[in-house]
Amino acid sequence: MSAPFVNRHIGPDEAQVTAMLDRLGYASLDELMDAAIPKSIRTTDPLDLPRAVSEEAAAAELRALAATNVPGEPMIGLGYHATVTPAVIRRNVLEDPSWYTAYTPYQPEISQGRLEALINFQTMVADLTGLTTAGSSLLDEGTAAAEAVALAFRANRGANGPFVIDADALPQTIDVVRTRAAGLGIEVVVADLSDGLPEGAVSGVLVQYPGASGRVADIRPLIEAAHEHGGLAVVAADLLALTLLEAPGTMGADVVVGSAQRFGVPLFYGGPHAGFIAVRDGLERQLPGRLVGVSIDAEGRPAYRLALQTREQHIRRDRATSNICTAQVLLAVAAGMYAVYHGPGGLRAIAQEIHELAARAAASLAHAGFAVQTDTFFDTFQVAVPGRAEEIVAAARDQGLHLRLVDADTVGLSFGETTSVATLRALHTAFGVVPQAVEPVAALPTALARTTQFLTHPVFNTHHNETSMLRYLHKLSNRDYALDRGMIPLGSCTMKLNATTEMEPISLAGFANLHPFVPAEDAEGYRQLIEELEGWLAEVTGYDQVSVQPNAGAQGEFAGMLAIRDYHRANGEGQRDICLIPSSAHGTNPASAVMAGMRVVVVKAADDGTVDFDDLREKCAEHAEDLAAIMVTYPSTHGVYEESITELCDIVHEHGGQVYIDGANFNALLGYAKPGRFGGDVSHLNLHKTFCIPHGGGGPGVGPVAVREHLAPYLPTHPLHPVADRRDGIGAISAAPYGSAGILPISWAYIRMMGAEGLTKATAVAVLSANYMAARLGDHFPVLYRGDTGLVAHECILDVREITRLTGISVDDVAKRLVDYGFHAPTMSFPVAGTLMVEPTESEDLAELDRFCDAMIAIKGEIDRVEAGEWTVEESPLRNAPHTARALVGEWDRSYAREIGVFPAGIDPDKYWPPVARIDQAYGDRNLVCACPPIDAYDE
Amino acid sequence: MSAPFVNRHIGPDEAQVTAMLDRLGYASLDELMDAAIPKSIRTTDPLDLPRAVSEEAAAAELRALAATNVPGEPMIGLGYHATVTPAVIRRNVLEDPSWYTAYTPYQPEISQGRLEALINFQTMVADLTGLTTAGSSLLDEGTAAAEAVALAFRANRGANGPFVIDADALPQTIDVVRTRAAGLGIEVVVADLSDGLPEGAVSGVLVQYPGASGRVADIRPLIEAAHEHGGLAVVAADLLALTLLEAPGTMGADVVVGSAQRFGVPLFYGGPHAGFIAVRDGLERQLPGRLVGVSIDAEGRPAYRLALQTREQHIRRDRATSNICTAQVLLAVAAGMYAVYHGPGGLRAIAQEIHELAARAAASLAHAGFAVQTDTFFDTFQVAVPGRAEEIVAAARDQGLHLRLVDADTVGLSFGETTSVATLRALHTAFGVVPQAVEPVAALPTALARTTQFLTHPVFNTHHNETSMLRYLHKLSNRDYALDRGMIPLGSCTMKLNATTEMEPISLAGFANLHPFVPAEDAEGYRQLIEELEGWLAEVTGYDQVSVQPNAGAQGEFAGMLAIRDYHRANGEGQRDICLIPSSAHGTNPASAVMAGMRVVVVKAADDGTVDFDDLREKCAEHAEDLAAIMVTYPSTHGVYEESITELCDIVHEHGGQVYIDGANFNALLGYAKPGRFGGDVSHLNLHKTFCIPHGGGGPGVGPVAVREHLAPYLPTHPLHPVADRRDGIGAISAAPYGSAGILPISWAYIRMMGAEGLTKATAVAVLSANYMAARLGDHFPVLYRGDTGLVAHECILDVREITRLTGISVDDVAKRLVDYGFHAPTMSFPVAGTLMVEPTESEDLAELDRFCDAMIAIKGEIDRVEAGEWTVEESPLRNAPHTARALVGEWDRSYAREIGVFPAGIDPDKYWPPVARIDQAYGDRNLVCACPPIDAYDE
Repeated sequence: MSAPFVNRHIGPDEAQVTAMLDRLGYASLDELMDAAIPKSIRTTDPLDLPRAVSEEAAAAELRALAATNVPGEPMIGLGYHATVTPAVIRRNVLEDPSWYTAYTPYQPEISQGRLEALINFQTMVADLTGLTTAGSSLLDEGTAAAEAVALAFRANRGANGPFVIDADALPQTIDVVRTRAAGLGIEVVVADLSDGLPEGAVSGVLVQYPGASGRVADIRPLIEAAHEHGGLAVVAADLLALTLLEAPGTMGADVVVGSAQRFGVPLFYGGPHAGFIAVRDGLERQLPGRLVGVSIDAEGRPAYRLALQTREQHIRRDRATSNICTAQVLLAVAAGMYAVYHGPGGLRAIAQEIHELAARAAASLAHAGFAVQTDTFFDTFQVAVPGRAEEIVAAARDQGLHLRLVDADTVGLSFGETTSVATLRALHTAFGVVPQAVEPVAALPTALARTTQFLTHPVFNTHHNETSMLRYLHKLSNRDYALDRGMIPLGSCTMKLNATTEMEPISLAGFANLHPFVPAEDAEGYRQLIEELEGWLAEVTGYDQVSVQPNAGAQGEFAGMLAIRDYHRANGEGQRDICLIPSSAHGTNPASAVMAGMRVVVVKAADDGTVDFDDLREKCAEHAEDLAAIMVTYPSTHGVYEESITELCDIVHEHGGQVYIDGANFNALLGYAKPGRFGGDVSHLNLHKTFCIPHGGGGPGVGPVAVREHLAPYLPTHPLHPVADRRDGIGAISAAPYGSAGILPISWAYIRMMGAEGLTKATAVAVLSANYMAARLGDHFPVLYRGDTGLVAHECILDVREITRLTGISVDDVAKRLVDYGFHAPTMSFPVAGTLMVEPTESEDLAELDRFCDAMIAIKGEIDRVEAGEWTVEESPLRNAPHTARALVGEWDRSYAREIGVFPAGIDPDKYWPPVARIDQAYGDRNLVCACPPIDAYDE
Repeated sequence: MSAPFVNRHIGPDEAQVTAMLDRLGYASLDELMDAAIPKSIRTTDPLDLPRAVSEEAAAAELRALAATNVPGEPMIGLGYHATVTPAVIRRNVLEDPSWYTAYTPYQPEISQGRLEALINFQTMVADLTGLTTAGSSLLDEGTAAAEAVALAFRANRGANGPFVIDADALPQTIDVVRTRAAGLGIEVVVADLSDGLPEGAVSGVLVQYPGASGRVADIRPLIEAAHEHGGLAVVAADLLALTLLEAPGTMGADVVVGSAQRFGVPLFYGGPHAGFIAVRDGLERQLPGRLVGVSIDAEGRPAYRLALQTREQHIRRDRATSNICTAQVLLAVAAGMYAVYHGPGGLRAIAQEIHELAARAAASLAHAGFAVQTDTFFDTFQVAVPGRAEEIVAAARDQGLHLRLVDADTVGLSFGETTSVATLRALHTAFGVVPQAVEPVAALPTALARTTQFLTHPVFNTHHNETSMLRYLHKLSNRDYALDRGMIPLGSCTMKLNATTEMEPISLAGFANLHPFVPAEDAEGYRQLIEELEGWLAEVTGYDQVSVQPNAGAQGEFAGMLAIRDYHRANGEGQRDICLIPSSAHGTNPASAVMAGMRVVVVKAADDGTVDFDDLREKCAEHAEDLAAIMVTYPSTHGVYEESITELCDIVHEHGGQVYIDGANFNALLGYAKPGRFGGDVSHLNLHKTFCIPHGGGGPGVGPVAVREHLAPYLPTHPLHPVADRRDGIGAISAAPYGSAGILPISWAYIRMMGAEGLTKATAVAVLSANYMAARLGDHFPVLYRGDTGLVAHECILDVREITRLTGISVDDVAKRLVDYGFHAPTMSFPVAGTLMVEPTESEDLAELDRFCDAMIAIKGEIDRVEAGEWTVEESPLRNAPHTARALVGEWDRSYAREIGVFPAGIDPDKYWPPVARIDQAYGDRNLVCACPPIDAYDE
């Protein structure tokens, strides 16, 4: 009965909307939107979505859906294992807005908490794998393996020969690698490597350790053989097994990948989980994805920040090491904290108990006459049950156990942190075995027993009681600026409300604890939720089919480009491989196109920020024979609704190309225009932008791909998809059939509670707020691009270049100074160097919009003082921002008062204090340290 | 499979325990405890409790218990209503450790967040009731009414005549008032007041508005009549109804009481909820319980703190206005935030919708031929169903609705925030009515329509979108110091870990959404949980029976003293009314004894802190004929295990008295000694101390009363208790049959996960830690009392009196200075003025214990500088503590450097910043303001 959700989600109330409209000179939201959005793309019919329901009703519906999933005891294995999320981590990380509403730590001074959490994760992975450097998470194990294959090729350019994968690797890993390799033109051979490598040169070898079957073999000979054949040795490893088994790095592996899921991260029907990658010394500059490193701040003290960013696609674009952008930060934080809480001894004890239960089960079944096929194993083994596998899997299901149906004659059993003696009893019943006291046989080869230490850093040996753990988590989150403190006006990132009612359902057991490979009938709730969500997304985008499998925006792009490629091939036009990309595109666009095997041709921007149509026509004509596609973002990253989008689509279509419309800015269209109707053939969406999945400090995200009917046959598939009729298409994009299924309830709830009207109004208020800010700030910082009506879309670009030319004050200086005013910076230097891109979203109310505008105007006043010569740049509060509490004590010889530095907006007892001063980025890259620094590094 | 819970709960690990034992010179915990605990009281058998289970297993058991409760749609009414807790409030208040692990805001400088939240609550209550001053919560509506009766007598000493209660008041309110009035010797008359007051003088009148039947009558004539008959007019009102009905205060009421439950607080099977009381101008100094007021800090800026504390029992003892100590802070915060989130318009809309649904239902039933007996109502009405009431209630239950069975011929229907059109359909089915379109009749008398404004303060008109609400909640909790930041070493308060696994179950629908008066068969999970918990508490205390009804420690004391009184009366010794209380007792002890109708005689303390046995014997002899009881705390509040406790019990017993052993310090005994075995006849426990219920910023608490067999007939009862055979005893102590049932899962989980060994070890580590601190700090601050072996119990008293004499530095100065070092102060000046009582609990690890000791030793060093004349007291960092961020800017002319003031423990980027400087307590009491101050009060 309380206020409809739309009024909770949208920040400005009616009076504030009216005030903003007044300022802009429009009588209504309708009038504003009529002026802003080109008629050519405007939809006329309201969205065909179910009527909005209240928060309580949506929550009840989701509880009902969750209740129709049947988690049971997940013993299927294949990279997904039963685990126990420590309650203190669930409540104070996964369910805590100060963690989950944070953005990617590109502004490191206000992200020290999650950066420390991520460096814990890196240290944990590096230690357990026995390698020197680990990244701060990839999307899942399958894509991590694919990244490793690409890395092997990049790092090993002299090599020739195929990349060889052991047949006992996870089937979904093999499929994801094949999909990626096909795009890159890499030959992949899958072979049984139990007797060694095939003849001939290889570029690399991937072996699963332990294998998908559970087998624990000595991988040293294979690693040596890989090196002898000129390739890199990649090991896909189980982190928990590595507490008992010697580290692959110690045995010579070059790269180790895997998933940190079983370190306390719920199964989530397949994701999100933190994939990982670690490399030996010398390969760290080849690492895909984000890497946290230690540097120093302006006061010379240690500080964390993202290292080696020049590898990444937002800088290197089509020459990037990978298209990966979103990581799995929230899950990496949880997994790292699991290691912090248990410590090395605790992890070993968990592994040992799991192993002993598995060994007891194997001995017991063997004693009862079953042939256990896996003689050396950690937690998983296979049993021969000739002709009876289906029957036994069904009997186990009746006992509440999900076993793996390997084939008609074989079942697989995998043990995890929740399996218990009761599980053994149920297992005996399922196999029709009368339990007897049987001595388990040693199943772990002693030759492979771990002898090297791990997790020796104090952080893994301190917080083993809950009080200490709680305080550590709160201390870290208190260091960070997230949406729980104030606005994060990042252009193109859509940092809107992540409502609690959207977030709560992901903790429900029926959503959280389901293994991705359970039979379809045990995932009925997910099936319905996903079907509905895909249907709603198709409706709002105007496409015909949607797949939620891609578990990040860049994955969606990659899937879309593969669909285009396969479509051309199916039409006998396999030569079409040119992808046009405007210069203003997100860096993931060119990187994704390259991964799909395309050649990137850049289309120039005209002075007004739109695509240069002369250049477009010229390049289309030039590539009429081999034009595959154009990738455009709409509204463009210039923050303007270009009138010409339909003409652009027409031109490309006329030349035989497909149109990829990047959905990053869909928050400006929802309810007003449908890309699938105004010319797009394929788009991806960012559910973590427009559809309220929180950014999680840098992930998880979800990037569904949406296509028109002619591309529908080329949507992602999956070798273990629970519904049999989805077995064609481009192969698997993500390790799990539905990618990050566990967080889809968030977007489902958002659409369910907003309804057509609410979603449409949200778009209008987002556009109104951006225009209000452009109006207030335009006199102080020129707004770089506007549409013909003088309006921007849902974001605007403030031009700082002239200021920089006149005064030396850079966008960095403005961004860091905003911290002193209590704000997260807008997007810096994208898409135009020397500018700031501001996106308020619909969730910020007028008071917060004004607080930001006031801060920016005050900063302009400070810049004016620099320009007037009152302060030098070097001695200005802008260059010395952000100011820490340290700035308030000790010597002070600057030309401005301390309080101007620290409290520019007035003394505020609720001030957010950045824990470090401005960080020296270059220092950290020159002196690369990507693991927990020794404690004495912090000594004063 | 992970670490047993005991290792998560207890802070020090084995190595730290060993290190502390080494320091103290004991070889083992056993040896230490053998030395510390007198043999005469030591138990020999291990506790008979079920084996400890893992966190996951306990959580699963609680989920199973919750699932056997059947909440349904709660339409029983009687003061408990369906409500929707806004998800943002649930997650960011009720489930957020930064709120629930906070202590009572006695240290206001580090409690500004919850103090603001409480002043919101007070403003809300004052506004809605139309009175000038409201307290910051009482325990429930029943006890609030009882407090109002006592207040009427206190405030109105010239009055004579009985206190008259309208028969249409809530039945449990009548019972609780009767219980209280009997203790105080107040005559209570229950009468049908629909035709006015009976003849003769009255001390006061209580009328329910709307009545228990739902009836909305004009209460003005009764209010006037009460005044004419010389009494005070007390109105028990429904806050939500008051958004539509004129405020009782506006109509002349002197006092308004009630419950804020339906403002977003879950039903919790009866509690905890925030009771409230508000009074007219002139009665504010008579208010029982805590009252938040505005004062100023040392910098002259507005700051909140508890006002008029001299009314309270910890100062006035047996002359206190009430024995109430614990409040319901967490629930008051939630209810206040519900009003902040909805605002006046939102609340009115909710009330209007509920009213309209009720009116539709009444019209529909009337149309179908049922006699609706309540002609004017807000949300509740009664229907005559001659002879069919049980049948209809059962039919409704089949439809998922819980109706009120008024009597064999009458059912009651009460509507709430979750009732909907679907509820109406189910209701029609239950009544066998075919729904027809019926025009609802106006059921709210227009003459009583609310015309006065409420909730006009900006705080109730700003945070109506979730983003803003989230930030407001985080801003407030960021101002406060709670267990999520560091140790709270409050002596006698046992601020131990509130583990997440203990806390999570209270959010389960089966526990949270159950109405207290559902039939027993729909509360099976609660029945089993309560039976088990009461049984376990009996086992660990050595008593025979336990009642969890008292919803605070002082309620348990009161119940216990009533049991003693009734026991004596039953034995024909009704003259026994003397209660001996040592001078060191908690202030609640004498206040509770007085409330039970006893006369308090203080027993002196000997120099060593023990009871002066000469004085004891003398007073026992003097009162041999009228000795009722002694109330002692064991170990005493001096923090020592007195050898003489058994002798003390014997002496009192010999003189015919009963022994009440206050369980406040039970954390020093659990597993080692049982009060019911070493001489106690009755005790109460504080589940919010020893048994892990969090303090919630000042409540909720639970204070079960435990008795030996001969007192078992005198345990609390309840008129609406679901189990029929519990209908004798002393009457109702709390409004709900099981008091704060909703938080009992916390203590249940603690015992279930710790088991006998774990609980016993926790006690030993608590004693070890206290002795370790006494050892480290004793050289710097004399430890006032020690046992014969030189050991303290689980806490120790540091004597600051000599320091104060020599230097002028007070315990206040030390306490506030600890804030600068990042700590909450220990207990100040209790039980001995000029001392600090330190209780570390078992949950703080050695690093935190040492951090505190280091801080105290550093403070002693600062004191030494004052003593040496280096700093004057006035100019010392101690007197000027705590230091805010303001201290770092502007003029600075003190004799110490800024950084010494603000960062005495070194510059810490994670520093907790107190938002205000030291608060002037007296100023606030002289200039009493107990509602939200105008915004411009904060202008710089």
